[in-house]
Amino acid sequence: MLGFNRDFSFEGTEAQQTIMREAFAVISKEHSSGRIGYYDLPEGSKAVVEAVGVLEQENSLLDSGTITDIAVIGIGGSSLGIKAVNSLLETKVKKRRELHFFENSDPIDISRTMAKLSKEKTMFIVISKSGGTIETTSIFKTLIAHFDLKLDGADRERVIVITDKGSALSKFGDHYALTQYNIPDNVGGRFSVLSAVGIVPLTLAGFDTNMLLQGAGAFLDSFFKGNEVHLLEKACFLYEHETSKRINVLFSYANALENFTKWYVQLWGESLGKIDATGNSVGMTPIGLIGSVDQHSFLQLLIEGPKDKTVTFISIDSFENDLKIPDVSLKFIEKTDFINGQTFNTLINAQCDATRASLVQSSVPVDGIVIEKIDSHHIGSMIIYYELLTSLVGAMLMINTYDQPGVELGKTILYDKFAK
Amino acid sequence: MLGFNRDFSFEGTEAQQTIMREAFAVISKEHSSGRIGYYDLPEGSKAVVEAVGVLEQENSLLDSGTITDIAVIGIGGSSLGIKAVNSLLETKVKKRRELHFFENSDPIDISRTMAKLSKEKTMFIVISKSGGTIETTSIFKTLIAHFDLKLDGADRERVIVITDKGSALSKFGDHYALTQYNIPDNVGGRFSVLSAVGIVPLTLAGFDTNMLLQGAGAFLDSFFKGNEVHLLEKACFLYEHETSKRINVLFSYANALENFTKWYVQLWGESLGKIDATGNSVGMTPIGLIGSVDQHSFLQLLIEGPKDKTVTFISIDSFENDLKIPDVSLKFIEKTDFINGQTFNTLINAQCDATRASLVQSSVPVDGIVIEKIDSHHIGSMIIYYELLTSLVGAMLMINTYDQPGVELGKTILYDKFAK
Repeated sequence: MLGFNRDFSFEGTEAQQTIMREAFAVISKEHSSGRIGYYDLPEGSKAVVEAVGVLEQENSLLDSGTITDIAVIGIGGSSLGIKAVNSLLETKVKKRRELHFFENSDPIDISRTMAKLSKEKTMFIVISKSGGTIETTSIFKTLIAHFDLKLDGADRERVIVITDKGSALSKFGDHYALTQYNIPDNVGGRFSVLSAVGIVPLTLAGFDTNMLLQGAGAFLDSFFKGNEVHLLEKACFLYEHETSKRINVLFSYANALENFTKWYVQLWGESLGKIDATGNSVGMTPIGLIGSVDQHSFLQLLIEGPKDKTVTFISIDSFENDLKIPDVSLKFIEKTDFINGQTFNTLINAQCDATRASLVQSSVPVDGIVIEKIDSHHIGSMIIYYELLTSLVGAMLMINTYDQPGVELGKTILYDKFAK
Repeated sequence: MLGFNRDFSFEGTEAQQTIMREAFAVISKEHSSGRIGYYDLPEGSKAVVEAVGVLEQENSLLDSGTITDIAVIGIGGSSLGIKAVNSLLETKVKKRRELHFFENSDPIDISRTMAKLSKEKTMFIVISKSGGTIETTSIFKTLIAHFDLKLDGADRERVIVITDKGSALSKFGDHYALTQYNIPDNVGGRFSVLSAVGIVPLTLAGFDTNMLLQGAGAFLDSFFKGNEVHLLEKACFLYEHETSKRINVLFSYANALENFTKWYVQLWGESLGKIDATGNSVGMTPIGLIGSVDQHSFLQLLIEGPKDKTVTFISIDSFENDLKIPDVSLKFIEKTDFINGQTFNTLINAQCDATRASLVQSSVPVDGIVIEKIDSHHIGSMIIYYELLTSLVGAMLMINTYDQPGVELGKTILYDKFAK
């Protein structure tokens, strides 16, 4: 179960009802027309889970159990979602195979990650929607050279590509007859975690991706049946405060949620930071925080700084960990003995509640999502929750939620610098 | 060398000269009067480095070489700076002892970190300026119970406390005759990395902390001699745009800088998010990004979203790593072959330049800091650079840069929940 609650007032006026109705209609049409594809992933990606199951039997390296490590080569939408799910589930599940991420064009990071791997035990998954991402291609070439991967011979089974059908990377995969999974054309990178992009590596790692899709599908169905009115209301509230509360903070009370907040930052920032049809710059600035740590970092600004922020708290009801603060008193440092004998689970959630209450008293609009416990089902629901929220706010702002024209200029400048 | 450059216009009008002169006078007086203590740390903490050198000989556990791991128990200002320096220097230096951080009240994280340690090989450093931080005290008690630490007996040498003189934790340390280092009263938590807070664990880890202090001192001296006018001008620019460019992004092009950006977020947010003397909420919202990764996440919002942001790029001129993109062409994915044969060092810095140029074309005010290479001296200078910048902007805003009254309310609410 996900629990939703809020401490901001929403009247539900006639005008607001209209805004919500229209946004619901827009995204229902995106869904039914097939123009936007992420809505179909909870159902459609079941076939990918099955295909990976078949691969695990047919690929001799996987079947023989020699593969203990998976190198995921991808960046942005081709890594953030995988890392988000991985960081959460690895707290609960003993993985069959470890995931290693090659993302950044940082030479120290690439060298370090390479040093952890041995060719014999590793499978390489290259992920790029467009097929031409410079970090991904450059790192892939480096790995081919470093590990002497023979794509036309002994190492053909060691490489998987995930990309759009017909992309350059897809043609490359076809040329070498590599195992290939495709991302539906109508699924954007930052909405692609439930496509092959996420499902293939997460399944190979040993996570229950069927349950992930089930959790996503359950929330999606409930929303389109009209049962998640709170989500429409939250979208409407955020939309109406687009200029006055331009910064949206996700304050997550668990270390394992840090990569989820990074996934959210991309989804929110890249989808909603746009020039609208009238030429105005609109956009919401996402910020990810981790509690209780960032109470000691960012909270002061939230309380006393400009009231230009909304805050969403995510907490985990049960960490399924009973580590306790011992019931002992240390001479002179007795001030926090009031928490003695309680679990850290109780402490961190009480800190979340107290911080939230202090923001409410300071007139900051807050809401909360309580995750019953960390499992695939809940994470799937959380993914769809944020994707739907993003689509709704984008529809209300009347922008194109799904493109990213602003990132092209830098690529052109880079190209011009070298390509003479 | 640190290189500074900028792409925003600053006229240096008479009014601006006055603002800069006055702010310089304010912080010069903070320094000379001894009211604010961080200015004295580059000089004053040399004694701490020396004291740790003596400890390494006198403490039988350190002297015998049995200690391979150091558990740092602290949060906020008592961990962020240590992590920032550690993440950078560990890319270059083989550590004598590994650092492990206990920060958050997250039960999964605490359990995991505990599981990595064995009592025999571990030294525990408890850091809390006030001496009453609930996460730190609770985790310390948990570690005492878990590792059966006998403070009045065999394990006395295994625990170090770092705190304000006279604090509850200080009295506790005195009671058990533990090794103790003190933080000067006039040094705030978020300005304390160059005090014993950072110097003790970083020296024990094996880093050149003398050089760290030297780098900090060199920049500090240069500033107070009037040689760093660019810093005053940047502070003035940020101050004058406090309401129109309220979000300040630090875009760091190296994974190893991620913890430095987190340190900056605390320093900037907690220092400058304040209610001023006239009752107005002022404040700057800090955001830390990592390049090139976040080009695929946040850049779209920077380019097309509201023009309410300034961006500072940090890049590393030489990673001292010659990993190259091989000069091979892969069939169909030749599009980025223009970068073939170049180092990743060249690629990541070219990406930084190109992204910056694209922001300049989009009328975003940007500036840049180029770090010649990663070493203690440069990191020390970077720390002081940001501390001085924070103090200058705070002086211009006429707020108290050094307190954090806003975080108390949540603590009271938490206390009231349990203490009956």
